[in-house]
Amino acid sequence: MTKKRPLILVTNDDGITAPGIRTLISIMNTIGDVLVVAPDSPQSAKGHAITISETLYCDKTSIDTDAPQEEYSCSGTPVDCVKMATHEILKRKPDLCVSGINHGSNAAINVIYSGTMSAAVEAGIEGIPAIGFSLLDYSMKADFSHCKEFILTIVNQVFENGLSKGVVLNVNIPKLQASQIKGIKVCRQANAHWEEEFDKRTSPMGREYYWLTGKFVNEDKGEDTDEWALANGYVSVVPTQFDLTAHHYIQELNTWNLNE
Amino acid sequence: MTKKRPLILVTNDDGITAPGIRTLISIMNTIGDVLVVAPDSPQSAKGHAITISETLYCDKTSIDTDAPQEEYSCSGTPVDCVKMATHEILKRKPDLCVSGINHGSNAAINVIYSGTMSAAVEAGIEGIPAIGFSLLDYSMKADFSHCKEFILTIVNQVFENGLSKGVVLNVNIPKLQASQIKGIKVCRQANAHWEEEFDKRTSPMGREYYWLTGKFVNEDKGEDTDEWALANGYVSVVPTQFDLTAHHYIQELNTWNLNE
Repeated sequence: MTKKRPLILVTNDDGITAPGIRTLISIMNTIGDVLVVAPDSPQSAKGHAITISETLYCDKTSIDTDAPQEEYSCSGTPVDCVKMATHEILKRKPDLCVSGINHGSNAAINVIYSGTMSAAVEAGIEGIPAIGFSLLDYSMKADFSHCKEFILTIVNQVFENGLSKGVVLNVNIPKLQASQIKGIKVCRQANAHWEEEFDKRTSPMGREYYWLTGKFVNEDKGEDTDEWALANGYVSVVPTQFDLTAHHYIQELNTWNLNE
Repeated sequence: MTKKRPLILVTNDDGITAPGIRTLISIMNTIGDVLVVAPDSPQSAKGHAITISETLYCDKTSIDTDAPQEEYSCSGTPVDCVKMATHEILKRKPDLCVSGINHGSNAAINVIYSGTMSAAVEAGIEGIPAIGFSLLDYSMKADFSHCKEFILTIVNQVFENGLSKGVVLNVNIPKLQASQIKGIKVCRQANAHWEEEFDKRTSPMGREYYWLTGKFVNEDKGEDTDEWALANGYVSVVPTQFDLTAHHYIQELNTWNLNE
């Protein structure tokens, strides 16, 4: 008798046809039964947005002919896709949710803007073990071939050890050849931010408009951060939580005069 | 000589004309010089989304005639508004950013979906002391009159004590009369989630579509949570952070076989 194959939900934020998710689907097909519910268009930087003031479409589709996975294309955000999968499409809770492979880094503060990671976080909120995968290459022609072994190692370790409730994994993979990667490193999120510059232009109708552009600034020199690991040839794994309480600060706030 | 008035950035997610932000602006005008940069349309549940694939408009406007504040109406998300204010409009970093008053609760897990709180978090990322205010009343006709004294107390305490870098405040106010409110309580975020139900309909063109609807489920019985405080007549204050690292879990992950 064969061991029961896990049920794996796959989503992303670059859209259902992006090379990153097609790679992730093919890797997941080797170990489980795969359901894909992913955005019908790019949804990068949508954070934890959900669609409450508009309607949603979610249509069965087939991108890879002859491939075993079931696929749905959804007009909503990555978080909408996870909600749609778990509350509308699936009869039972999946054993794992993987999101990605994102085209571009979700290390450091990028975790908070990322649709890829927000999808994984949403799965975590719903009690599903979840991992977001990102490659440090924004190109739609990025080479994902070295990602497979690291993804399988991390997924297998999640199945073997289980993930504690309230924790999801944020995995970033350097743009290097497999032989150049030194290993997998558990890290904390580097303390970084974006310095924005708005590119101001004038429309043909004479109205001013802006493009958001920015520069990533990492002031965190710690060697235990994801940014350090990635810059030094490691795959970074950051345990990420959605209890946003700054527990260490509660005692301090209780010394304030809030009730006088 | 008078003490220099603080520069206060005001934003929200319900849109620049919502009664909640108009109330917050009038309160802030009593203590500081106010800049308003807020969405030109409702942006609830947009989380930490930013606009990177579309252009942004940001136009000077005047909603209250004769009022002292400077106001801009922005086509983007609440987080875009904060970036626009700090990187394009203002010459210097504001002394405080307040977001809200949101029409509806942002307690418990709602913090992660909330545009109101994401705007405050973005200000925090940029090193600005920041507070999100929400009233537990979704109505556009909500009565905000009892909010003023609690908002002023909390803002004054932030100016007096300072807020540690990396922490913003998530303040929720019960839908009660001032005399019924027992005080202000420092809390942790309750561990809760949404159980979604998709309302499936058919368009006049015969295509199936969905509305996201859901039920809030709080399984956390702790008396130190925001949900408990609000249900028991307190204003809740949760210190909220954007370092999403589950620091307590790093040791556990280091026992996994990630490099074999």
